[in-house]
Amino acid sequence: MRLATLADGTRDGALIVVSEDGARFLPAGATMQHAVEDWAAMEPVLRDLPARLAAGGGDRLDIASLLAPLPRAWQWLDGSAFPTHGELMQRAFNSPPHTGDRPLMYQGMSHRFLSPTEDVPLPREEDGIDFEGEFGIIIGDVPMGCTAQAAMAHIRLIVLINDWSLRTIAPVEMKTGFGWVQAKPACSMAPFAVTPDVLGDAWRDGRVCLPLTVEVNGRWFGHPNGAAMAHGFHDLIAHAAHTRDLPAGTIIGSGTVSNADHAQVGSTCMSERRAIEMIDHGAPQTPFLSFGDRVSMTAGPFGSIDQRITACPTPA
Amino acid sequence: MRLATLADGTRDGALIVVSEDGARFLPAGATMQHAVEDWAAMEPVLRDLPARLAAGGGDRLDIASLLAPLPRAWQWLDGSAFPTHGELMQRAFNSPPHTGDRPLMYQGMSHRFLSPTEDVPLPREEDGIDFEGEFGIIIGDVPMGCTAQAAMAHIRLIVLINDWSLRTIAPVEMKTGFGWVQAKPACSMAPFAVTPDVLGDAWRDGRVCLPLTVEVNGRWFGHPNGAAMAHGFHDLIAHAAHTRDLPAGTIIGSGTVSNADHAQVGSTCMSERRAIEMIDHGAPQTPFLSFGDRVSMTAGPFGSIDQRITACPTPA
Repeated sequence: MRLATLADGTRDGALIVVSEDGARFLPAGATMQHAVEDWAAMEPVLRDLPARLAAGGGDRLDIASLLAPLPRAWQWLDGSAFPTHGELMQRAFNSPPHTGDRPLMYQGMSHRFLSPTEDVPLPREEDGIDFEGEFGIIIGDVPMGCTAQAAMAHIRLIVLINDWSLRTIAPVEMKTGFGWVQAKPACSMAPFAVTPDVLGDAWRDGRVCLPLTVEVNGRWFGHPNGAAMAHGFHDLIAHAAHTRDLPAGTIIGSGTVSNADHAQVGSTCMSERRAIEMIDHGAPQTPFLSFGDRVSMTAGPFGSIDQRITACPTPA
Repeated sequence: MRLATLADGTRDGALIVVSEDGARFLPAGATMQHAVEDWAAMEPVLRDLPARLAAGGGDRLDIASLLAPLPRAWQWLDGSAFPTHGELMQRAFNSPPHTGDRPLMYQGMSHRFLSPTEDVPLPREEDGIDFEGEFGIIIGDVPMGCTAQAAMAHIRLIVLINDWSLRTIAPVEMKTGFGWVQAKPACSMAPFAVTPDVLGDAWRDGRVCLPLTVEVNGRWFGHPNGAAMAHGFHDLIAHAAHTRDLPAGTIIGSGTVSNADHAQVGSTCMSERRAIEMIDHGAPQTPFLSFGDRVSMTAGPFGSIDQRITACPTPA
């Protein structure tokens, strides 16, 4: 089942069920937040709609009319589960080494996820504008102390995320040990949130085993595969729930998708490509993004993010 | 004006206006989140109620019936604005040094703030259970790029917070540069959120110039003053808004209140007292908290937090 959220003038939008080809939709009569909070009651209602869509029912879907599938969330916890990415950043830029079995995770801004096509307002080009292609999950209520094994059953939906990042600020904030605030503005989400069954064999051991393709200004940037997570999403849930309940609608991210054969498959963030250039040539060569640049991301059944970076107007 | 939130079976509770002596209340017909989202319309309505309370109107208030004034928020950004605290932690425990003018800030769990009197469920005593006494603000909508000067006008309410912290986990998470997830479970809030005018002369330059008194199991622990912030709350807002809009209802914390004359006024967290013991005697002497211990905090017109720590039941 493929879900999306239609802009309707409210902050939460209107949940819709989308046909397999992404062309048509039927309204679900709820918000995404309501659906994940009351999944046991809502899922059967939602699962009735794809048959009606397959029979030709519903309206034509315009991607430009969509918000993020979950336009705001009570919590966004972003992991960094691809070891190749961490190793490259450490070798090139002396990022803190990560040893041991603990997943890496930070809490980011969750009150607004940008739609797949809206402009991305940022204050300054000199902050080092970059993207991060990631997979993410939207979960139901998870109690404190939930095990990784039990966590798998709480995964409701899978999404594709661009975690916009500001690389001049990031290392300054990392050095404090407090994590990122300014370095992590609002993320963007691809149009469709899908239930795990939609992925079929590509959903294995809590991992999205699909390539995530990134283009910058229409040119290929990378297509590494989500299978290479050191910890599956169920492990990330258990890590996050060690000392807190997680509310329905919590979004958990994989971190930048990254593969050991990056020379072939490329990267899903500029900072990683710059790290590889640093290691190979002694200095980064690829510049960060400028206002007017476009970044697109696509993977499997999630649809595409395609956005342009713009200068944020100075407030009055 | 003094606001609180009555438990009513919903996640957001029911906003009330409380009399000056904290003894009586009138319902506001809204939630706290609605009030801060629509402050221009709501404030005059709310400001009519104190006169009715002063004339003997309203019902008797039972503190045990209250939730946190804002029981959940879209965002909780916690600063660390008291230089004495940072210096002590660095001298004793080699915490990362903080140089320069940037405020320190992390994003913490915001989907649940505990009520002033409910038990605090935590999984393990060996995680190093500690408290942090802080002042905080609740703001209206703030646009990206807001200056510190303009930020002052967005401060709607001031609150008193206990930022529960797990000290065995904290340094492990700090070393990654990603900040805290497991080390920062749900915070607690004192009963009353107050408008700045209630503080009178004690609200100066974006600082709460009042002592914050902490007791552990009924014994004095400290009463340092909130005036000693290196950055005022307006500066913290501007820092947070550098690369993001801040939604109405965002809560921003001062960090552990701490004064240079800590030998006289004590501390508002155990970790700081342990740091002082480390510096003075070569080893910490005060143990962290155990299940069953009580922590209370009070300051000015905010009322008191008084809670007991309990073992979190293992989920089924």
